Amino acid sequence: MDPARLRKLLTDVRRGRVTTRAALEAIAHLPFQSIGPATVDHHRGIRQALPEVILCQGKTKAQCVTIARAIVGKSGRLLATRASAEQALALTEAFGRDATWNEAARTVVVGKSRRRITGRVLVVSAGTSDLPVAEEAAVTLEFMGVPVKRVYDAGVAGIHRILRHVPALRRASAIVVVAGMEGALASVVGGITGRPVIAVPTSVGYGASFGGLAALLAMLNSCAAGVTVVNIDNGFGAGYAAGVIALRSRRGSGS
Amino acid sequence: MDPARLRKLLTDVRRGRVTTRAALEAIAHLPFQSIGPATVDHHRGIRQALPEVILCQGKTKAQCVTIARAIVGKSGRLLATRASAEQALALTEAFGRDATWNEAARTVVVGKSRRRITGRVLVVSAGTSDLPVAEEAAVTLEFMGVPVKRVYDAGVAGIHRILRHVPALRRASAIVVVAGMEGALASVVGGITGRPVIAVPTSVGYGASFGGLAALLAMLNSCAAGVTVVNIDNGFGAGYAAGVIALRSRRGSGS
Amino acid sequence: MDPARLRKLLTDVRRGRVTTRAALEAIAHLPFQSIGPATVDHHRGIRQALPEVILCQGKTKAQCVTIARAIVGKSGRLLATRASAEQALALTEAFGRDATWNEAARTVVVGKSRRRITGRVLVVSAGTSDLPVAEEAAVTLEFMGVPVKRVYDAGVAGIHRILRHVPALRRASAIVVVAGMEGALASVVGGITGRPVIAVPTSVGYGASFGGLAALLAMLNSCAAGVTVVNIDNGFGAGYAAGVIALRSRRGSGS
Amino acid sequence: MDPARLRKLLTDVRRGRVTTRAALEAIAHLPFQSIGPATVDHHRGIRQALPEVILCQGKTKAQCVTIARAIVGKSGRLLATRASAEQALALTEAFGRDATWNEAARTVVVGKSRRRITGRVLVVSAGTSDLPVAEEAAVTLEFMGVPVKRVYDAGVAGIHRILRHVPALRRASAIVVVAGMEGALASVVGGITGRPVIAVPTSVGYGASFGGLAALLAMLNSCAAGVTVVNIDNGFGAGYAAGVIALRSRRGSGS
Amino acid sequence: MDPARLRKLLTDVRRGRVTTRAALEAIAHLPFQSIGPATVDHHRGIRQALPEVILCQGKTKAQCVTIARAIVGKSGRLLATRASAEQALALTEAFGRDATWNEAARTVVVGKSRRRITGRVLVVSAGTSDLPVAEEAAVTLEFMGVPVKRVYDAGVAGIHRILRHVPALRRASAIVVVAGMEGALASVVGGITGRPVIAVPTSVGYGASFGGLAALLAMLNSCAAGVTVVNIDNGFGAGYAAGVIALRSRRGSGS
Amino acid sequence: MDPARLRKLLTDVRRGRVTTRAALEAIAHLPFQSIGPATVDHHRGIRQALPEVILCQGKTKAQCVTIARAIVGKSGRLLATRASAEQALALTEAFGRDATWNEAARTVVVGKSRRRITGRVLVVSAGTSDLPVAEEAAVTLEFMGVPVKRVYDAGVAGIHRILRHVPALRRASAIVVVAGMEGALASVVGGITGRPVIAVPTSVGYGASFGGLAALLAMLNSCAAGVTVVNIDNGFGAGYAAGVIALRSRRGSGS
Amino acid sequence: MDPARLRKLLTDVRRGRVTTRAALEAIAHLPFQSIGPATVDHHRGIRQALPEVILCQGKTKAQCVTIARAIVGKSGRLLATRASAEQALALTEAFGRDATWNEAARTVVVGKSRRRITGRVLVVSAGTSDLPVAEEAAVTLEFMGVPVKRVYDAGVAGIHRILRHVPALRRASAIVVVAGMEGALASVVGGITGRPVIAVPTSVGYGASFGGLAALLAMLNSCAAGVTVVNIDNGFGAGYAAGVIALRSRRGSGS
Amino acid sequence: MDPARLRKLLTDVRRGRVTTRAALEAIAHLPFQSIGPATVDHHRGIRQALPEVILCQGKTKAQCVTIARAIVGKSGRLLATRASAEQALALTEAFGRDATWNEAARTVVVGKSRRRITGRVLVVSAGTSDLPVAEEAAVTLEFMGVPVKRVYDAGVAGIHRILRHVPALRRASAIVVVAGMEGALASVVGGITGRPVIAVPTSVGYGASFGGLAALLAMLNSCAAGVTVVNIDNGFGAGYAAGVIALRSRRGSGS
Repeated sequence: MDPARLRKLLTDVRRGRVTTRAALEAIAHLPFQSIGPATVDHHRGIRQALPEVILCQGKTKAQCVTIARAIVGKSGRLLATRASAEQALALTEAFGRDATWNEAARTVVVGKSRRRITGRVLVVSAGTSDLPVAEEAAVTLEFMGVPVKRVYDAGVAGIHRILRHVPALRRASAIVVVAGMEGALASVVGGITGRPVIAVPTSVGYGASFGGLAALLAMLNSCAAGVTVVNIDNGFGAGYAAGVIALRSRRGSGS
Repeated sequence: MDPARLRKLLTDVRRGRVTTRAALEAIAHLPFQSIGPATVDHHRGIRQALPEVILCQGKTKAQCVTIARAIVGKSGRLLATRASAEQALALTEAFGRDATWNEAARTVVVGKSRRRITGRVLVVSAGTSDLPVAEEAAVTLEFMGVPVKRVYDAGVAGIHRILRHVPALRRASAIVVVAGMEGALASVVGGITGRPVIAVPTSVGYGASFGGLAALLAMLNSCAAGVTVVNIDNGFGAGYAAGVIALRSRRGSGS
Repeated sequence: MDPARLRKLLTDVRRGRVTTRAALEAIAHLPFQSIGPATVDHHRGIRQALPEVILCQGKTKAQCVTIARAIVGKSGRLLATRASAEQALALTEAFGRDATWNEAARTVVVGKSRRRITGRVLVVSAGTSDLPVAEEAAVTLEFMGVPVKRVYDAGVAGIHRILRHVPALRRASAIVVVAGMEGALASVVGGITGRPVIAVPTSVGYGASFGGLAALLAMLNSCAAGVTVVNIDNGFGAGYAAGVIALRSRRGSGS
Repeated sequence: MDPARLRKLLTDVRRGRVTTRAALEAIAHLPFQSIGPATVDHHRGIRQALPEVILCQGKTKAQCVTIARAIVGKSGRLLATRASAEQALALTEAFGRDATWNEAARTVVVGKSRRRITGRVLVVSAGTSDLPVAEEAAVTLEFMGVPVKRVYDAGVAGIHRILRHVPALRRASAIVVVAGMEGALASVVGGITGRPVIAVPTSVGYGASFGGLAALLAMLNSCAAGVTVVNIDNGFGAGYAAGVIALRSRRGSGS
Repeated sequence: MDPARLRKLLTDVRRGRVTTRAALEAIAHLPFQSIGPATVDHHRGIRQALPEVILCQGKTKAQCVTIARAIVGKSGRLLATRASAEQALALTEAFGRDATWNEAARTVVVGKSRRRITGRVLVVSAGTSDLPVAEEAAVTLEFMGVPVKRVYDAGVAGIHRILRHVPALRRASAIVVVAGMEGALASVVGGITGRPVIAVPTSVGYGASFGGLAALLAMLNSCAAGVTVVNIDNGFGAGYAAGVIALRSRRGSGS
Repeated sequence: MDPARLRKLLTDVRRGRVTTRAALEAIAHLPFQSIGPATVDHHRGIRQALPEVILCQGKTKAQCVTIARAIVGKSGRLLATRASAEQALALTEAFGRDATWNEAARTVVVGKSRRRITGRVLVVSAGTSDLPVAEEAAVTLEFMGVPVKRVYDAGVAGIHRILRHVPALRRASAIVVVAGMEGALASVVGGITGRPVIAVPTSVGYGASFGGLAALLAMLNSCAAGVTVVNIDNGFGAGYAAGVIALRSRRGSGS
Repeated sequence: MDPARLRKLLTDVRRGRVTTRAALEAIAHLPFQSIGPATVDHHRGIRQALPEVILCQGKTKAQCVTIARAIVGKSGRLLATRASAEQALALTEAFGRDATWNEAARTVVVGKSRRRITGRVLVVSAGTSDLPVAEEAAVTLEFMGVPVKRVYDAGVAGIHRILRHVPALRRASAIVVVAGMEGALASVVGGITGRPVIAVPTSVGYGASFGGLAALLAMLNSCAAGVTVVNIDNGFGAGYAAGVIALRSRRGSGS
Repeated sequence: MDPARLRKLLTDVRRGRVTTRAALEAIAHLPFQSIGPATVDHHRGIRQALPEVILCQGKTKAQCVTIARAIVGKSGRLLATRASAEQALALTEAFGRDATWNEAARTVVVGKSRRRITGRVLVVSAGTSDLPVAEEAAVTLEFMGVPVKRVYDAGVAGIHRILRHVPALRRASAIVVVAGMEGALASVVGGITGRPVIAVPTSVGYGASFGGLAALLAMLNSCAAGVTVVNIDNGFGAGYAAGVIALRSRRGSGS
């Protein structure tokens, strides 16, 4: 129940247009129902930097299109993640020129990004196989209107590749580090920069990588303070978390 | 905010004793604050079949006594679980004759159990080492006022021991099965009775029991429908869950 | 050996129609054989609230139909779970109009549910991907004659969605909570209601969900007393356990 | 180097027909080469109760047939395990009437079993899904010439089913128990009989069965002494181990 | 209910000394009650090759002595395993000269072993740290009256040490192999002998031995057919299983 | 080597004030050594919001004091974490009134916090046992000069407790959520706020909490976007990561 | 930047042939970029014993060919690993007679191996299923110019098979041991030889081999000093590590 | 049986001083017994670069001293690892000035190291807590006569610390990398050098380090070829493996 409606109700009570009993009834349902409009939806409104996102995985093409239409109808924009080629085709057919399919990221974006002047986020990845997850993070950030700089194929086995980017790493609002196998890149980056580092382990690898578990554990055990971790392959989550930081971070000289 | 207070507020608005603005302010804090009195506390009131319980583990003797006094002062009764000998001594000193220490169960109970005429719960355990967990469940049930029948040392390696109790197993409101090592007892009991079976794996054992993991997995994989599982060594949780079932179950002939 | 046959045997002994030796022989085989008719079958008779269920998974279409015919021939009713589209088609062809296929639940039901006036069970699920498991629980309950209320898509990331249902959660005979990913919903529900909560972790998710392990562990560690857990994806088991509780629970005002 | 050849060499040395140097050379290679003929092959000769077995899994049809011909050419008999339908067809085509395909056990046997009068082995299984593993054990035993009694579908959730077979369980030379899910059957059987019990966990199940891990751990933790365990799904290994016991066990009255 | 009592009951019925109804009542309780005397106890009688054993671990000194007196009073013999020095002292004080403490094995034996002429069992261990478990197996076998040959410190890192015992390995009724760390010894022994091999992983080691898990998995995956496995550190279980095999095995020339 | 110094060196070379050889020598050490002064130390300078921290765990009292003196001598401030009572005593003795021991947090702080006007961080914890980890995070933040609001004992089993703090959760620069057992609190908080949430699983609990693994997995699988995770019990890491975000976040109205 | 070039630059500055500004510019990029030429690239040059390798797994045919052409164009040689039949066909079509496909090893080699006179490496494997991994190691070594001796099908269940190769094992520069299942072969080989042993666990097996975990743990726990381990199925890594040792090892008589 | 003795035996046979039968007998025991003297001991002789080592862990002080005296009596030298302060005291008392206790490494060395001119090994460690394991490796190498360079406290969170040692890393015969927590150091070092890298995970850390498992998995998944791994905390094994490589490696200019 929004303040305006409640104020009107109280005014009506005062003016005798609504009985006390009827008003009591109306307010009686507040405790839980009102949580929606009064707080959560408000919250949703504020979170509209990121309107509803569809996780396509596990949905039929028809379901994807239906939900997408509802979202676009309401907010004019859409981010669909983990879209298979078939799902992406269905979505691009449904939205025509407004839709952009990023095959590497497995995303479909509808509508323009409302780019704001905010902090830049670096998305760093270790190997070429980590690219889909890195791209998912990058597209999510762009969808939120956050400028993104991609630094790919910068694994620690060739340490000079990441060292080239030290100045950028120190000026970023946040850094997303995507790495499978041993996941050491997050620690190296975390040791170089004083900015928030969000690490994404990937399921790339074989044998004792155990589907990303090795990278996950390595990242959680990072010796570098300031490194936090999201679920294996969760490029969206990392991008979103970095975006939330960037959206409110002050501009400043490198550190 | 209870209905009476809200009705008075609205009446005051109508009568001009409270401004619309002040009323708006008062109601504005409802969405979350009101959840307390209107619903959750009510819920607490109803859950008073089991007044607050102290998990002594990880608390100092002084903390145990302080919290216990507060609970007893409010509700007149207390169940303290996982009490070490030192903690139990401190509690029995604090409450004198009102306190009962069950050394095997590691519990201290203050106040009389309000015994009701309800369904009986069987607590079945496999080995003598499972006894502390079984007793914790039994004491919890008794504290809730539920009659308990103990069937101890009835492991499946001597299948005749549990078969002796078939009639009781079929007439119980619920059965708590406590077993470490391979945890097979839950399946055997579940196959015999049509009543709810709550299985408690225990950390008894060595080697590949992995601190109760073997029993836990076995119980989760039970072929007998109607078996549900609680955490390793969680005698209190199993007793409480069985008690909640027993408190509302109809009396009836065996099945 | 049923009581009638045994009584007749004894009468025959008394009347001299059967020699003591022959009677001795007949009874000598009792210890194990008699367990069947005298006790277990009796037990089966009582458990007939839930006649035999087929787990279709791992069976051929022909096997499913053959077993189904045997069950329906004996009890007139059938619940087939985990039925693939092909298996479901074969079963609906075999039983015609008597059969109902629930595609979401992957179940086929033959025969009418004998609805009784008993406690209602809520089936609550967190996300749309948890739906098949939730539906399996719901269909199982309906098959047992227990009224079911479905509350779907009520994950904790939008806490207001579950809070809307507080009154229903408090009046239910039992609640089945189906949730994958972090499984937090079971704790939230368990904290709201004083009624038995049966939690079903699902294998929905990716990465560190490890096929449902994350949700399973979370549910076993629930801080809310009264929560018990079944195997990952075991909608049938949860439904059955909730049904067994509901069948014998007294009606009452909310708590 | 067999004794006869060595004796001749030494005689030749004594008689001057072979130089000391040449003899030294000949004997110099003994330490490792001689292990073959002198001991290991002898050992193989004795183990011919079970001539070479082919594990078809992971081999091409052509490889299976080639190896099979070599074995049959040498020993006249063959046991091929884990044979797919295609592999089985190729083998039965190659050996014609001499070959017997057991589809359930996924085995092809060539040649007659040399049945001996020895102790009987019981193969007990919990559910119908465990059948392939149980049959693999049974066929292996029959191939070794050991009489087998199959007791299938005797899970602990219906304890009376296994209790019917108590006398047979006590008279067997050894018992193979095949069970997935919770694996409790091994303990129940081990508690009934005083004879060696070899437990085989199966990968049947879902969720927290973790591919047979739950059953494996349960069996390793069995409270019943005398239970030993083999790898998940290893019907051949269990059958072979039981057969080795049976081949040398004395006949005797039940115990 | 033993045959004599049942025959008398039937005779009484025939003679009219007992009513049909009373007889019916008496027999009605047979299904479960009779399992005790008629079958399980009989079974116990036969299993008296190994009278009750006490697992001292987790019991007080007083409990150990009390239970021990009861066992010795009934059967004249006792095997106490996992006895701490304190428990062993208490037991040896209680039974005086009749008691023998094996400090390495952590066992106390009361009474003489009834040695029979049966097959010999080899107990092979890999390292000196595996000795307590190996000794527990050896003492258990001796208690059962089975001659034991100890082959200790024969790890695979010095393969010649085990190769020295090839003839003995081939003549044994059964072999118990005790090994921690990588557990390879079981495979090597299993490849040498055609007799049953019972492998016991030990919790010796550090790091990635994970308390015996590495050895356990290695033994379960043994390439040598005929190897079965017991729980980590379960020397008693392995000894008992080997003893059960040896007690009924025919004497014969090596193989 | 900063540009000014290098330019001067080159000018000196050109002017003949420095020999080519000496310049070569000076530059020769650049590739690696220069990383230190030019970048890493600079970086350290910037990171001086958090001067060196001592992890006392695993160090002797003497080592703690020696290292602490060095740090305080250089920066005038110190944060010692995981300090035992003995270590804390030694440090407070060494630094006298300048040192503050927070027993709950197991920290010793030397020097005043340079409080700045920046975003506030909420530290939310589920249970009283999570307090030490929550306090470690809070003290770390205060040491960085970040205002902290503590919201303790707000577990999801009593959902109304956290709902009371919705406005604060939405206005915070970042939120640290500390929870053991099932870790559901992070999801609930993440669903309420649009600000960065850093989740800390704790090793509190027993049985299937597996030392914090259950909470860790739950948090990684959180359905709420924007939640990132640190290692089990890593209150310092979470506080530092939240502080790094807060230090650069713009002030703003709630969201 | 190598010293010679830097010296020339400084001389040019001194002589006025290069402006201070231009020199500053040239050196300005040193701190990070110079790591490349000065150290890492140099390092690459030295590592050219093994020019770039392509891991085909996860790449399209077109990507494989494109990258391969780039490598061959630069170095004239190529090693492609984990090549599917399709990828191998595409590569052999692209490079014609210069390309050699090893189907078993799943490798394609382009260009001749520059064979050097260095130490020989033995590649030992346990079972036929381990062959692909063993061949991957062997081809990698041959590509590095290291002579390879293959000893296949030498599992420990037939210990005499590996004992035949004792002299070769003692003379090798290094030994690669490839084994799945229980992985015991590495310990046996490590106990025989004093040369470096690199163990490769393979994912061959089923059940409790857990995709190679059992072999991995066994190898890590090897009692034989001098055994080191690589990732499951990492034949390339083991071959490379052995090659690096062999390339610099002195020739010598056996040990 | 050494060649000299065998030649004499054959000469005696030829000369008639030994009968053919007696010679046959003497040689008959060769196959297994001869493996000892003829091969293994020879092998031991060659391995005398490292005479017997005592793992003190799990041994009494008396056992340590007794075994140590035997070893020193035979070879004049000794390396005792994992020695507690008490064990070290006992050993230094027993051997007086000849014994050197390295408290950090937990080693006692008796006798002088026979230093040879061979390749140098670098021992690199990440944190101060990894020191005991690093020292164990270093002392082992020194005992083998291999020059050691220690590079401690060079974790990747301060990447410049390890980069300082690039030249030394490239010239070493082998590098031992000791790291707990995330274990990333091994990859960074492996990417810098072309020489063999032996990685030792340590059990340092807490939470999700799971006793060294995180570091172990990270190291096994290292992207840098040429990295091999030993068991958690196995400093001795890593030192020995590096020593075996260094002992036979040619001297050469850096690479």
